[in-house]
Amino acid sequence: MKFKANVSVKLKPGFFDPEGEAAKDALNDLGYTVYSVRVSKVYSMELEAKSLDEAKKLVDEMCRRLLANPTKDIYEVEVFSSEQPV
Amino acid sequence: MKFKANVSVKLKPGFFDPEGEAAKDALNDLGYTVYSVRVSKVYSMELEAKSLDEAKKLVDEMCRRLLANPTKDIYEVEVFSSEQPV
Repeated sequence: MKFKANVSVKLKPGFFDPEGEAAKDALNDLGYTVYSVRVSKVYSMELEAKSLDEAKKLVDEMCRRLLANPTKDIYEVEVFSSEQPV
Repeated sequence: MKFKANVSVKLKPGFFDPEGEAAKDALNDLGYTVYSVRVSKVYSMELEAKSLDEAKKLVDEMCRRLLANPTKDIYEVEVFSSEQPV
């Protein structure tokens, strides 16, 4: 069965986010008053699994093996049946 | 007043997403069956504005001026009062 998953990967609080800092500085230079910017990444994927439970297990494994760095990142996983709107 | 905003920026459908393709290939190499991966970026920011309406207007402007490329990206904006949980 096909499933859809959204994986959000962001830096743990306290870790310096150079991309967010650069965006903050650029926005302030453009005249906005922006106090902080943090950037996270969302992977939207379609995958094959036997059941919703297996799909959740697989996506969690993908995060630990490839998509997130457990030292500095936190991640959140949402998995849907492919028929449901995401 | 302080407001929080989440801005999601992703490629329009049909635009080639090299980062997503690389993630898809790496996941398939690791033994998963993944049909597609698309990557989007979320900017979580705190900004100053006089009202919720002004905050929404400002963040939309930030997207058009800096955060998104109108030729190839689509963006979605959520704005919250800073007291609400995000």
